Amino acid sequence: MQAVIDKIYQQVAPLLSEAKVAHYIPALAEEDAQQLGIAIETIEGKRFQAGNVSQAFSVQSISKVFNLTRCLQLVGEELWQRVGVEPSGDPFNSLVQLEYERGIPRNPFINAGALVVVDVLMDHLKNPAQELKSFVESLCGETIGYDSNVFDSELETAHINRALVNFMKGHDNIRNPVEAVIRAYLYQCAMTMNCAELARAALFMANSGVVPSSGERILTASQCKRLNAVLLTCGVYDEAGEFAYRVGIPAKSGVGGGIVAIIPGKLAIAVWSPALNPKGNSQLGMKVLELFTTETGLSIF
Amino acid sequence: MQAVIDKIYQQVAPLLSEAKVAHYIPALAEEDAQQLGIAIETIEGKRFQAGNVSQAFSVQSISKVFNLTRCLQLVGEELWQRVGVEPSGDPFNSLVQLEYERGIPRNPFINAGALVVVDVLMDHLKNPAQELKSFVESLCGETIGYDSNVFDSELETAHINRALVNFMKGHDNIRNPVEAVIRAYLYQCAMTMNCAELARAALFMANSGVVPSSGERILTASQCKRLNAVLLTCGVYDEAGEFAYRVGIPAKSGVGGGIVAIIPGKLAIAVWSPALNPKGNSQLGMKVLELFTTETGLSIF
Amino acid sequence: MQAVIDKIYQQVAPLLSEAKVAHYIPALAEEDAQQLGIAIETIEGKRFQAGNVSQAFSVQSISKVFNLTRCLQLVGEELWQRVGVEPSGDPFNSLVQLEYERGIPRNPFINAGALVVVDVLMDHLKNPAQELKSFVESLCGETIGYDSNVFDSELETAHINRALVNFMKGHDNIRNPVEAVIRAYLYQCAMTMNCAELARAALFMANSGVVPSSGERILTASQCKRLNAVLLTCGVYDEAGEFAYRVGIPAKSGVGGGIVAIIPGKLAIAVWSPALNPKGNSQLGMKVLELFTTETGLSIF
Amino acid sequence: MQAVIDKIYQQVAPLLSEAKVAHYIPALAEEDAQQLGIAIETIEGKRFQAGNVSQAFSVQSISKVFNLTRCLQLVGEELWQRVGVEPSGDPFNSLVQLEYERGIPRNPFINAGALVVVDVLMDHLKNPAQELKSFVESLCGETIGYDSNVFDSELETAHINRALVNFMKGHDNIRNPVEAVIRAYLYQCAMTMNCAELARAALFMANSGVVPSSGERILTASQCKRLNAVLLTCGVYDEAGEFAYRVGIPAKSGVGGGIVAIIPGKLAIAVWSPALNPKGNSQLGMKVLELFTTETGLSIF
Repeated sequence: MQAVIDKIYQQVAPLLSEAKVAHYIPALAEEDAQQLGIAIETIEGKRFQAGNVSQAFSVQSISKVFNLTRCLQLVGEELWQRVGVEPSGDPFNSLVQLEYERGIPRNPFINAGALVVVDVLMDHLKNPAQELKSFVESLCGETIGYDSNVFDSELETAHINRALVNFMKGHDNIRNPVEAVIRAYLYQCAMTMNCAELARAALFMANSGVVPSSGERILTASQCKRLNAVLLTCGVYDEAGEFAYRVGIPAKSGVGGGIVAIIPGKLAIAVWSPALNPKGNSQLGMKVLELFTTETGLSIF
Repeated sequence: MQAVIDKIYQQVAPLLSEAKVAHYIPALAEEDAQQLGIAIETIEGKRFQAGNVSQAFSVQSISKVFNLTRCLQLVGEELWQRVGVEPSGDPFNSLVQLEYERGIPRNPFINAGALVVVDVLMDHLKNPAQELKSFVESLCGETIGYDSNVFDSELETAHINRALVNFMKGHDNIRNPVEAVIRAYLYQCAMTMNCAELARAALFMANSGVVPSSGERILTASQCKRLNAVLLTCGVYDEAGEFAYRVGIPAKSGVGGGIVAIIPGKLAIAVWSPALNPKGNSQLGMKVLELFTTETGLSIF
Repeated sequence: MQAVIDKIYQQVAPLLSEAKVAHYIPALAEEDAQQLGIAIETIEGKRFQAGNVSQAFSVQSISKVFNLTRCLQLVGEELWQRVGVEPSGDPFNSLVQLEYERGIPRNPFINAGALVVVDVLMDHLKNPAQELKSFVESLCGETIGYDSNVFDSELETAHINRALVNFMKGHDNIRNPVEAVIRAYLYQCAMTMNCAELARAALFMANSGVVPSSGERILTASQCKRLNAVLLTCGVYDEAGEFAYRVGIPAKSGVGGGIVAIIPGKLAIAVWSPALNPKGNSQLGMKVLELFTTETGLSIF
Repeated sequence: MQAVIDKIYQQVAPLLSEAKVAHYIPALAEEDAQQLGIAIETIEGKRFQAGNVSQAFSVQSISKVFNLTRCLQLVGEELWQRVGVEPSGDPFNSLVQLEYERGIPRNPFINAGALVVVDVLMDHLKNPAQELKSFVESLCGETIGYDSNVFDSELETAHINRALVNFMKGHDNIRNPVEAVIRAYLYQCAMTMNCAELARAALFMANSGVVPSSGERILTASQCKRLNAVLLTCGVYDEAGEFAYRVGIPAKSGVGGGIVAIIPGKLAIAVWSPALNPKGNSQLGMKVLELFTTETGLSIF
């Protein structure tokens, strides 16, 4: 497998010279686009890495997976009364479907859905933002970072997210104060992790809900299976169908350029490259994952 | 004409016994539904009245007309770079069209449009809310009221309006702080006027922009003509076409149960009855205006 | 008034050199774009003309007005159970609103609505297409033309219209065979008239439903007033609001480059210039009408 | 495994007494609702069955899988220039997304997409309908039926499908005559199969594209993996996300009450029960599949 990712790295690295970061989040726009990291963790504990796997980046929407996991631990299936599990077909911050469906977001991975998940967490945790960071740290076994510049930058421009929260509050699907929900959400988005940490943190999802190294159960096998299903159908925004078609494994992307994916029963893989495609997913990260499943023949189908 | 409105009052009054106020604004829900007032002012200075024309009610969206008038005085045609003049076809607080049209509201009489108008006013006036009240008072020649209970009640539940303002701010079409825009907007909605005052305040619109009694020019003839055109196509929410079809004169309604309408070159008419139809317009008010144009044969067509 | 339209003609004619016809109907694309005609008929029987008022052109959607008039004669208000009177806000051939509103078109001037009107006519007339032509001829007092090339060309490419009719048939709002409805509709669109004929044919609409020269009543005063109201709010596609704002009189346009408008109690005016703006209305025709109401001060508001 | 499906059958059978068929296709409405069949074929050649597995039913939309398979054999990846692979989020026969995306259907399993697939087949096959039937027969090793009553019934009421084809022809995404496309499509929908045949016909999809019994390759491993991915994200209409969440395996349903699903590397399972849920999928069929994956722990995640 090391040979495989080395080969993929060699194939994709030359494309880095053309990579550009044109970003709506000012603090992320400064990121050096010519970066590529690939990290794999298997459930047997093996590690394979290529490129820059030690530089931490802004996890952004990838945090929604940990957010949802924590929420499922706390309230279980009850969550689905306030958020759906259907693919959206619209951009990640669209208000249209939210209006037709009267404040119930289509799934927990579009912004509206993640904001409801945050609102639920706030009902059960004292310091939802910090406690989520601790939770992720316990998953990957390391202290992770937090970028206050990114937080400040996003807080200033979070108008559409505020629109989403206000709209859902108008439909009684947000219980906490708008600004508190926004801050908790942006805090989790501003967490920073490197590829190695990210792959490790996601490994329980490839192992029916159990962290392989410690044996700790994070989700029941059934919850884990369902989480993976929602990732496959909704994890990469309105590119989910294309991704399922080309790559065929559960994955979650973030506008920081990271993507984490898992192959059930086998491994977790994290890639990072900051330049984004028009859908908001890492351009080279998508390419790496497509080559990875093609080269290895690994797939869930 | 007095005979005509007496006859209409006799026809419509019996329907009052069935009128119910089921309101999303708690403070308005307490309103006594069994109310009906009709007031006419002609440009020659004649007055015709029937029913309860002296009780003040919450003007709500009717304030958008005065708001827009004041804004046209200040910035003229420039306003139309930030708000359109097309009918919406969607409910007054819809976010859908706003998303397709990237933060540019369809017209100044849906909430999004009126909020942009308020934002423009705030750039030019120190105390936009109070100054708007003074402006309306100068139009009708009397001190008008303001209901702080209604203001407080609406401020608490203005989530969808906050969603609209935040969304437009995310599209760079709001320049002032969100909460300040909301407060100025809700202040003007909470002004109270009776039918007689309302008809008088609107009379300049029937007189090519000039207040008949004082000769003061409020708008140019061209601006006034255009204001009336926008009222006809957009003044009664997504019922504008039906209203133009049945009644055929420029009008603006409010969820407080008031409607003000004008017949160019002739008169202004204000009606008030708090029970609303499913589209959010005064049920009996619409009926009165339909009977009025049918009985008198007055129409712009 | 002759002086006014001469002046307008001089102002607008220089713009003709840039006019281009880029048309989705092949047979109309061959039209010479450098054409401009203006014809006015007053209810007192006066005529004012400028430019090319004798060349016949394809009336296209302007026929919808005569179609609707004939239908109102036959079934009256009953028609409104199958078609609405609200502005559409969407392009003339959109299927979106039709789906949300389950096969009931928003108004009789979008294609879907006109196709329902044709379907109703077919229930009452033996040869709806030919009888409509005769009806228009009786209105303008002359034999008008019909362009079979345009008919054939449109019949071949009428896929979206067929989609509309089939969709409405699927919602039980079309009773006759799809292809028969399409043919009757395209026949009326392929009628040809010049500006002078068009102004004369529409004059009854400016005269409360009565043809001034003959005294023949076409519609009741109430029906005529309502027809004009629907024209104002829906007559020029999704540009209706902008047109009401700038011009402020009831009008109907066609993709053949013609527009006919009326000023109630005064006159009918027809303009023709084949180059279209992005909304599908005659670019110079719109300009002429805007100048006309500005210059004369005539308006309904 | 026989024990498992016997147990599931016992659990679900009592619900049959409440099952009702309320159908928009008259010929299918006559179907006896109190039916339930379950058939499993493993790639090792084992068979497990419960209930009525020998009665043939109308395959309806399940035929879209075979249709797509045949099309991929003929034109491969080229197909995706004319149809997408994204979940739709709208009902199976919606025109809305088709309008926004200018005639390119979201995926091959909504009606619009399947109609494009038929159109492609028609460019390559002389008798696409009959040849598709033969293809399915070769897959399951048996002569299958065809219900001309269902075909006639659907042909008469296929207005919405005709609207879809005409609309796409208007956007140059249909090349053959509209009625020929409709007939070929309805022919394939009117094929009849029983559960046993259906499970056998789908088995190649669970075996990387190869029919286990004969070793015949139907699709490449990569094509098969991608077909399964599209099934998972789009196979059960706008309930795809919910189904992925609850059941978690690729599946295709039809309004005849059948559902066929596969577990890659293991087996194909077909269920049949005519009563439909509000989304148009077999109510008890969905229940059986959910119990099946729960009981066996089989899943792709």
